[in-house]
Amino acid sequence: KNSNLNMLPKKSIRLYDKDGGKNIRVKNISMRTIKFLKDFATTLIEGRWRYTLAIFTVSFAGSWAGFAALWQLIAQAHGDLEFDPLTGERMGDGRAACTRGAYDYAGFFLLSVETQGTTGYGEKYPTEECPEAVFLLMLQLIIGTIIEGAMVGVVYAKLTRPPRHTGDFVFSRNCVICLRDGVVCLLFRISNFAEHQEINSRVEVYLCEKSTEGEPRDTKLKLENDGQITLYLPQIISHAVTEESPLFGYSAEELANADFEILVTLTGNSKATGQTSQSRTSYLPKEILWGYRFVNIINYDHTIESYTIDSVHFDAVVRVDTPTCSARSLQEAATVPQKDIRKRKKRQVPQDSFSSKYSLQVDMQVAEIAVKDVKSQFQAQSWDGFIDSVPIKS
Amino acid sequence: KNSNLNMLPKKSIRLYDKDGGKNIRVKNISMRTIKFLKDFATTLIEGRWRYTLAIFTVSFAGSWAGFAALWQLIAQAHGDLEFDPLTGERMGDGRAACTRGAYDYAGFFLLSVETQGTTGYGEKYPTEECPEAVFLLMLQLIIGTIIEGAMVGVVYAKLTRPPRHTGDFVFSRNCVICLRDGVVCLLFRISNFAEHQEINSRVEVYLCEKSTEGEPRDTKLKLENDGQITLYLPQIISHAVTEESPLFGYSAEELANADFEILVTLTGNSKATGQTSQSRTSYLPKEILWGYRFVNIINYDHTIESYTIDSVHFDAVVRVDTPTCSARSLQEAATVPQKDIRKRKKRQVPQDSFSSKYSLQVDMQVAEIAVKDVKSQFQAQSWDGFIDSVPIKS
Amino acid sequence: KNSNLNMLPKKSIRLYDKDGGKNIRVKNISMRTIKFLKDFATTLIEGRWRYTLAIFTVSFAGSWAGFAALWQLIAQAHGDLEFDPLTGERMGDGRAACTRGAYDYAGFFLLSVETQGTTGYGEKYPTEECPEAVFLLMLQLIIGTIIEGAMVGVVYAKLTRPPRHTGDFVFSRNCVICLRDGVVCLLFRISNFAEHQEINSRVEVYLCEKSTEGEPRDTKLKLENDGQITLYLPQIISHAVTEESPLFGYSAEELANADFEILVTLTGNSKATGQTSQSRTSYLPKEILWGYRFVNIINYDHTIESYTIDSVHFDAVVRVDTPTCSARSLQEAATVPQKDIRKRKKRQVPQDSFSSKYSLQVDMQVAEIAVKDVKSQFQAQSWDGFIDSVPIKS
Amino acid sequence: KNSNLNMLPKKSIRLYDKDGGKNIRVKNISMRTIKFLKDFATTLIEGRWRYTLAIFTVSFAGSWAGFAALWQLIAQAHGDLEFDPLTGERMGDGRAACTRGAYDYAGFFLLSVETQGTTGYGEKYPTEECPEAVFLLMLQLIIGTIIEGAMVGVVYAKLTRPPRHTGDFVFSRNCVICLRDGVVCLLFRISNFAEHQEINSRVEVYLCEKSTEGEPRDTKLKLENDGQITLYLPQIISHAVTEESPLFGYSAEELANADFEILVTLTGNSKATGQTSQSRTSYLPKEILWGYRFVNIINYDHTIESYTIDSVHFDAVVRVDTPTCSARSLQEAATVPQKDIRKRKKRQVPQDSFSSKYSLQVDMQVAEIAVKDVKSQFQAQSWDGFIDSVPIKS
Repeated sequence: KNSNLNMLPKKSIRLYDKDGGKNIRVKNISMRTIKFLKDFATTLIEGRWRYTLAIFTVSFAGSWAGFAALWQLIAQAHGDLEFDPLTGERMGDGRAACTRGAYDYAGFFLLSVETQGTTGYGEKYPTEECPEAVFLLMLQLIIGTIIEGAMVGVVYAKLTRPPRHTGDFVFSRNCVICLRDGVVCLLFRISNFAEHQEINSRVEVYLCEKSTEGEPRDTKLKLENDGQITLYLPQIISHAVTEESPLFGYSAEELANADFEILVTLTGNSKATGQTSQSRTSYLPKEILWGYRFVNIINYDHTIESYTIDSVHFDAVVRVDTPTCSARSLQEAATVPQKDIRKRKKRQVPQDSFSSKYSLQVDMQVAEIAVKDVKSQFQAQSWDGFIDSVPIKS
Repeated sequence: KNSNLNMLPKKSIRLYDKDGGKNIRVKNISMRTIKFLKDFATTLIEGRWRYTLAIFTVSFAGSWAGFAALWQLIAQAHGDLEFDPLTGERMGDGRAACTRGAYDYAGFFLLSVETQGTTGYGEKYPTEECPEAVFLLMLQLIIGTIIEGAMVGVVYAKLTRPPRHTGDFVFSRNCVICLRDGVVCLLFRISNFAEHQEINSRVEVYLCEKSTEGEPRDTKLKLENDGQITLYLPQIISHAVTEESPLFGYSAEELANADFEILVTLTGNSKATGQTSQSRTSYLPKEILWGYRFVNIINYDHTIESYTIDSVHFDAVVRVDTPTCSARSLQEAATVPQKDIRKRKKRQVPQDSFSSKYSLQVDMQVAEIAVKDVKSQFQAQSWDGFIDSVPIKS
Repeated sequence: KNSNLNMLPKKSIRLYDKDGGKNIRVKNISMRTIKFLKDFATTLIEGRWRYTLAIFTVSFAGSWAGFAALWQLIAQAHGDLEFDPLTGERMGDGRAACTRGAYDYAGFFLLSVETQGTTGYGEKYPTEECPEAVFLLMLQLIIGTIIEGAMVGVVYAKLTRPPRHTGDFVFSRNCVICLRDGVVCLLFRISNFAEHQEINSRVEVYLCEKSTEGEPRDTKLKLENDGQITLYLPQIISHAVTEESPLFGYSAEELANADFEILVTLTGNSKATGQTSQSRTSYLPKEILWGYRFVNIINYDHTIESYTIDSVHFDAVVRVDTPTCSARSLQEAATVPQKDIRKRKKRQVPQDSFSSKYSLQVDMQVAEIAVKDVKSQFQAQSWDGFIDSVPIKS
Repeated sequence: KNSNLNMLPKKSIRLYDKDGGKNIRVKNISMRTIKFLKDFATTLIEGRWRYTLAIFTVSFAGSWAGFAALWQLIAQAHGDLEFDPLTGERMGDGRAACTRGAYDYAGFFLLSVETQGTTGYGEKYPTEECPEAVFLLMLQLIIGTIIEGAMVGVVYAKLTRPPRHTGDFVFSRNCVICLRDGVVCLLFRISNFAEHQEINSRVEVYLCEKSTEGEPRDTKLKLENDGQITLYLPQIISHAVTEESPLFGYSAEELANADFEILVTLTGNSKATGQTSQSRTSYLPKEILWGYRFVNIINYDHTIESYTIDSVHFDAVVRVDTPTCSARSLQEAATVPQKDIRKRKKRQVPQDSFSSKYSLQVDMQVAEIAVKDVKSQFQAQSWDGFIDSVPIKS
C-alpha cells in the first residue's frame, strides 16, 4: 500500500499524509500530558488493540491483586489465619472465619478473581460472619461492574469506529486539471469502497497557503453541488477554477512551482451505525496533473445485469487537450477579442470535441510547455495506475 | 412486497433498486477482501442475524475449545492426570492438583465453558497450587469479557440500526409531472410510516445522467424549502421544472425515451435513538407519470377527532389536465406571444381550475399524444394503487 | 400541567398537541403491524418502562422455561430420571448422569435459570458425561448473552433518549405578533430548561395550510439568523412578516378566523450524550396574540453575581401598541403616501417609543377592533402566566 | 489553570465563564426539580464520577438489602428459620427449605448479593422447593441485569463524553482587532489540542446585547468560510467588521466602554466516537485587544520533518499599526474624499506594510488614544502569554 508513495521525495513538506494522518507535532509536552489524562477514553478508543488490551489487563490484574490484599487483611485482622498447632482449629475471633477456603495470598488472589469475575466456583467464599468482608464483597462487585462496563464500552466504540487512516483508499492519488464544458476544473475522484461515509456525505476542499503573517490560512474551494454527494458510486469531484478561486491565476508552469497544499475531507455517516466520521487526504502542487482527466471506471455489464466498478483503474488518468495558461489568461483570451473570435468561429470546422473551442483560441498564445514538465515527473516511474495509452471514449 | 415490481421488465438498467439496494458490483475482489477485514464490525452489524449468530457461536466455541486445551496442557504438565493404579492417588508434582474435577478433555472443556461464561458451578475449579492455572483463569476472564463486550455492542448496534432496504415503504412507487400553481412540477410522495428519519429530515434528489466521458454524473434538483421537511405526515416533495432544471427540455414523449435515473435519498435521525440513517429509491423515466397527481390521503376525521392517513392509497395517482410539451415550450408559449394571450384572456370565461389557463394556451400547439403512451405502459396491469377513476377534489 | 389546556375547546383540529405529540392516525392497521415487527427495538426503546420490562421478563422467563424443558428432555433421554426402586440407583445409560441435582421440572428450571443467569450456585450442574448437555450449556450461554446484550442496549438507549413530549416546557404557550424595530414580527419564546437540544440548536417553523388539492402543505417561515440559536438562555424567536411571508396578508381580525397551524420544531444535540433529538409544538391561529410581547425574564442579579431566569413568567405576555391591520396594509400605508408622511413627520412630536411611528400613521385607517376580540378569548380565564398589568420596561 | 483569570475583576457581569460554564441561575426551583427527575440519566452522565458512583452504590446496596429482606420473608413464611430445639431439624412446611445456607439477615443479605452479582458461590442457594423463591430468583436476576445495564451505559457515556468545560484550552484568551488585507477584522484563535470537535467543525460567534425590551438578544457575526473550519491546526477565526457587523460603529475608545458579550461556540464531532459536542467561551469588550494580532505559532521544523505548534504562545499577541477609529469612520475616510486620496497616494512612498495605506489616511483624524487605554488594562499584569516585545515577522 505504501510502496506507491515512494515515487515522491521521501519527506514532502506537507500537513497531511496521503492517507490522512497529520504531520504535525505539538511542541509543549506538558500540555499533551494534561490532555492525555483528560481524554483517557479517547486515547483508549483511538489506540491500537494491543495497547487497549494491555491497559485493561493491567487494570483487571491490579484490581484483582489489590482486592486480594484487602481480603487477606480482613482475614488476618479477624485471626482467620492463626491455627492451633495441635488441633488445627482456627484461633481468631468469632464463631466462624470471614472467608472459607483461602489460607495464603495465592488463595485470596483466587478468591478475588473468582469474586470480581462473578465466577464464584464456591470452593472459596466469604461468610456472613464479618460485616467488613460482606462490605468488601459489595465493593468489589461494584468496582468489577464499572471496569467491565468501561471495557464493554471501549470494545464497542473500537469496533464501530472507522479505521484511522483511510484517505489512501478513498481519494484518487492525484488531482487533475482539465477543461469541462469549456471551464478549467480541478478534479479528483472519491470512492465508496469503505462505506463509513456513505450517508449524508459532503466533501470539503481547502487550499492552504501561508498568509502574510506566516501562518497557514485556509481558503475553501467552491465545489459542484456545494460538495454534497451521494456516494453510491465513485464520484469525480469538480472545482471550477473561476474568478473567486485562488487557483485562477496559476498556469501549468506556475502551479508546478507553487507552494500550497490542497486539503480534502470527506465527512459522512456510516450506514451501519449512523456514526459520523471523516476521511482526509492532501494534494501538493506536484500531485496535480495538468491536462489529464480520469479514466471512466463505471460501466453497465449486461451479462450480470449490474453496474460494475473497475477498481483497478480508480487512480488511472489519461491525457486530454488542455491549455496550459492560467484560467485568468484563458478567460481574458475568450472575452477580450470577442469580435475576432466570433468572426473566426464562423469559418471554423464543426467542433466535435468539447475542449477544442478554447484550445484553438489559446494555442497561438501559450505553447504546450508546462504539460511536458509536469508529465516528466511521473513518466519515469512504472506505476500501474497511470495509463497514458487509454483512448478517450468521448 | 416484491410482486408489484413484476410489472417492470425483469431487470431494468438501474443503479438503485426500488427499495434502495445498490445494483453495483466492484470488479476487483482483492480490494473487497481487504475492506472486509478492515470493517469486520460493520460486516457483523450489517449482516443478517443468522450470520452474526454463527460468527459469535464460532468465536465462543473456538475460545472455549482453545482454553480447554490449555487447561488440559497445564494439568498434564503438572502431572495431575497421572494416577497411581493401586491407590488412585495423584502422582504429579506439588501438594495439590492445578484443577479439581476435570480428568479428560470433556471435563476441561466444561471447566473452560463454566469459567468463561462466569457460571462457575464449582464442581470443577482451579486451585491456587499452580500460578500458570491462575494466570490462565485471569486470561480467560479478560478474553471472555472482550468477546462478550463485542457481542453486546454488536447486538445493540443491530437492534438500533434501521432495516436495510426501506425505500419501498418510504417513497411512492411513481413520480408524477403536473402543473402546480401554473408551474410544471416533478412530484413524489414520502411517508413517515417508518420513523427512522423523522427528526432533521431532508430530501435530496439527484438526476443521474451519463456525462460526455461516459461516467454517471449527478445533478442535484432544487426542491421546495431546499428539501428540508417536517415528516409528521406523508409529504409531497416538489421539484419545480424551471430553467435551471435538467428536466426543462423534456416533453412527455421525450421523457418516455430518456436515459437517466432519478436518485432520491431521505436522510434523518431516529426519534428513539437519534441515529442518522438514510432511505433511498430511484425513479427511471418510465416510472415518471406525465399528467397525474397524487390522491389526497390525509383527512380530518371528526368522529375520532384526529387526522387520518389512508395508507392504502399512498401510491395512488389520478389524471389531471397537463400540457405534454416540455416546460421550455410551455414557458416560451406563455411569454413570447404575450400580447396575443393578453387579448385572448379578456375574452375567456372565468377560470375555475388552476391549470386551465396554461392548458388552453398550449392545447393548440401540442396534442395530447405522449400521455396516452405513458399511460398505456401501466394500464394493462391491475395494480390496486393506481386509481384512474378517483375524481379530483380541487 | 395539563389543566391550563382546558381553556381551549376540548379538541381543537390540530396536527400536533401542544406538547409535541402527534394527533394523527394511520388507517391501515396491517401496515402498522409490519412496521411494528420491523422496528421491534424502536418500539421497545420508545415504549414505557413497564412495557419494556414486561417484554424482557417474558423473554427471560420464556427462554428459561424452554431451556429447562430441553435440559429435562436430555436427562430423560439419558435415563437419568429412572431410579431403581430398591437401591435408589440411577438406571440410565453411561457412567454418570448428564446433570446432577435436578430430578423434576422445577429442578431443571432452576438449573436453567442458574445457568443462563451465570449464577451457577453449584448444587445443580451438567457433567461432561453427555455431549448434548455440554452443547445445550453452550447454546444457553450464547442465547443468554444475546438477550442480556439486547437488554443492556435497550436500557442504555431508554436512559439516554430524551423524554417523549417536552414541547410544553420548551415553547411558550402562545405566539405574539407585535412591532419590532418597526417591522411586524411573529414571536415565540423557547427555553433551555431541558438541555436535550442545547448543542447545535436550530428552530424551524412551518406554516401548514390546506393546499388546493386538500392536502396539508408546509411553507417554511424565514427566521432571524436562519433559526440557528445558542440556547444558553431562553430566547425569543422572531419571524419578520415581510412580503415573502404567508402571514403578510393577515390582519388581526382575519387571523382570528384563519385556518392554518404553525408547526415549530427545535432540533439539537444533548450536551451529555451528543444525541440528536427534537422538541415540537404547534400554534393555532387563536393561540397567536396580536398586539402583545413577552415579558423580560432575564436579569442580572448583583447579589448572587449571576444572571437569573424568572421561569414563572416564561409564558407571560404584555400588551403593546400594535396596528391591527395586516403587514401588507401597513407597508402600503408606509410607502404609498410617501410624500404626505414625510411632511406630516416634520410636524410630529419627537418619537420616544419605537412603535409610535407606525401606529400613528395607521391609526386613522384601522380602528383597534381585532385586538379586543382576540383578547376577549383569554381575559375570561384566570391564567397565572398571562400578565396584563406588567408595565413595559422599555 | 484558573490563576490567569485573577487579573480580571473577580466577578465580571458575563453569561459564560471563560471556560464555557454558564453564569445563569433559574429562579424557580420546583421546575428544576421536575427536570432533575425527568433527566435522571443526563444528571448521572454529566455529574462528577464520585456522584455517579455514590448513586450506583446506593442503588446496588438498596436492591441487595431489599431482596435480602424478601428472601428472609419467604424463608420465614415457609418456616425455614424454625428449628426443633432438640434435634435441630427444620420445623417448617414441605420436604425441604426454600433456601439453604442462610439463617439470619446477614446470611440472606449475602445470598442476595451473590445472586444479583451472579457470583453464586454455592454455599447459599435457593432450592426448587418453593415456587416463590424461584420467582424471586428470576426477579432479582432481571432487576440485576437492568441495574447493571444502566451502569454499563452510564459508564460508557461518561467515558466517551467530552470534558465539561474545555473553553479555556480551546479558545485564545483574548480577541484582537486589527487590519487584515485593509479590512478591520475581529480575530481570535482556536486550537485542536482537545480533539473532541475535530470532525465537521464549525464556529459560531454571537454578539449578545441588551435589546430595547431589556432582554439579551443575539446577533450572529459573519465569519470567513461561514465558520466552517478544518481543525487540523490551531486556526485564526476572522470576522470582517463590515457594514452589516454590529461592531461597525465601535471605535477603540467606545469599545472599551461598551456593554456586550461575544459568545463563541465550537461545535464538532469526535474523531474517536463520532459524538457531537461543543466548546464555548465568551469575550467581554475589555478582553478585545485593539491593535494587536496573534503571534505565529506554526512552523515547519526541517530537523524532524514535521510542522510544529508552539503551544506556549497560543495566547500570545503582538502590537500592530491599527487605526483606532471605528470601521465606519475608516470606510468613510476611505470612500468620501476619494479624489483627494487618489491624488495623495501618487505622492506617497511605496507601501511595504499591508496596513500602512489606511493608517496614514486616518492618522490625521484619529490620534492613537484608545490603544493606550486598552493596553494599560493589561500591562500591569505579568502574564506570560502576553508578549509585547515579539517582533512582527511580516
